[in-house]
Amino acid sequence: MKKKGKIPEPTVARLPAYFRCLVRLKDNDVAVVSSKEMSLLTGVQSSQFRKDMSYFGEFGIQGLGYHVQGLIKKLASILQLDKLNSVVIVGVGNMGSALIRYPGFLKWNFDIKYVYDNDPRKIGKEINGMKIKDIRELTDEKDASIGIITVPRQFAQETADRLIRAGIKSLLNFTDVKLDVSSDVIVRNVYLPQELALLNYYRYSG
Amino acid sequence: MKKKGKIPEPTVARLPAYFRCLVRLKDNDVAVVSSKEMSLLTGVQSSQFRKDMSYFGEFGIQGLGYHVQGLIKKLASILQLDKLNSVVIVGVGNMGSALIRYPGFLKWNFDIKYVYDNDPRKIGKEINGMKIKDIRELTDEKDASIGIITVPRQFAQETADRLIRAGIKSLLNFTDVKLDVSSDVIVRNVYLPQELALLNYYRYSG
Repeated sequence: MKKKGKIPEPTVARLPAYFRCLVRLKDNDVAVVSSKEMSLLTGVQSSQFRKDMSYFGEFGIQGLGYHVQGLIKKLASILQLDKLNSVVIVGVGNMGSALIRYPGFLKWNFDIKYVYDNDPRKIGKEINGMKIKDIRELTDEKDASIGIITVPRQFAQETADRLIRAGIKSLLNFTDVKLDVSSDVIVRNVYLPQELALLNYYRYSG
Repeated sequence: MKKKGKIPEPTVARLPAYFRCLVRLKDNDVAVVSSKEMSLLTGVQSSQFRKDMSYFGEFGIQGLGYHVQGLIKKLASILQLDKLNSVVIVGVGNMGSALIRYPGFLKWNFDIKYVYDNDPRKIGKEINGMKIKDIRELTDEKDASIGIITVPRQFAQETADRLIRAGIKSLLNFTDVKLDVSSDVIVRNVYLPQELALLNYYRYSG
């Protein structure tokens, strides 16, 4: 992941968790939150939280804390969650199907617009009210923001290439393939065995 | 995540990706790899890779690089991937079902041993050759290493409590609930809208 702008990457990486926490506070009608409370809720030290917020000119109210609603608005704007973002999913296998039915995306303004597969037995069928399209029809998706790759690993690179050619430059890759992309393309990888391996490490160490 | 031992957390966080990369090299019959090649394959700077390896007493061979097989063995030992680790999944919804059918876990020596649900329509049915057990039977799972929580958010905390009571202290949480656990329990969270939000940030910034 390239660094862009002047906000440190670790700070950026924490923003979605802050956002998630603040939305939960708002749902519970909390209007103001202290950095100490945020620390308890997110596990990030309160001094770190205050520093992270200061990058966005948010310093809170002396002795009181931060306006929940205001901070949500700010973070939503930074993370571009204040508008609907279209998502394309390629690969309607087990993981793809689970993601298509996953209700959490729309809550964050991510809208799954099209789903594609290369299997003739799947193409044309419906899933969650959406028709599965032929991967060969994925030629122009400039309106879409993000492409999710849930194909078998042998199709991962060609799927990435196709998404990029269609105009999608932000990819979430669920395969274990390291995608070969140009520097203007952003890739994030979700590889679940790695998560388990880290749990394993911390379980046995210390 | 608590820091344990003397290896920095960012180093630990990179180990699974190194492991994944090395296994792929071995599959392609590569015997020795330079830090520069590892850098190209993982996106981690070669100086950083060398530093990370030095924490484990791995310094490579001057002008040549690192023995792939030896490094795999070392990392597998550190991440406890050199033995079978039992995994329990609670919540056989869309995500749970996808994980149960996911072939990548066993490749890393994670073996899904039991799956649980609280839905009478699911309990007793088979998925991927495993019988779905009644969550109330989850009372003693000391042989299991890791619990994966894929229940609806309102059941997340009680599921965590139950897993911990049963002796499982390493949890992978797919809900957006911040689990309240004691300090000897390790939790990692996979919340996919956060991944998309980060893609969004990097797409628009810079």
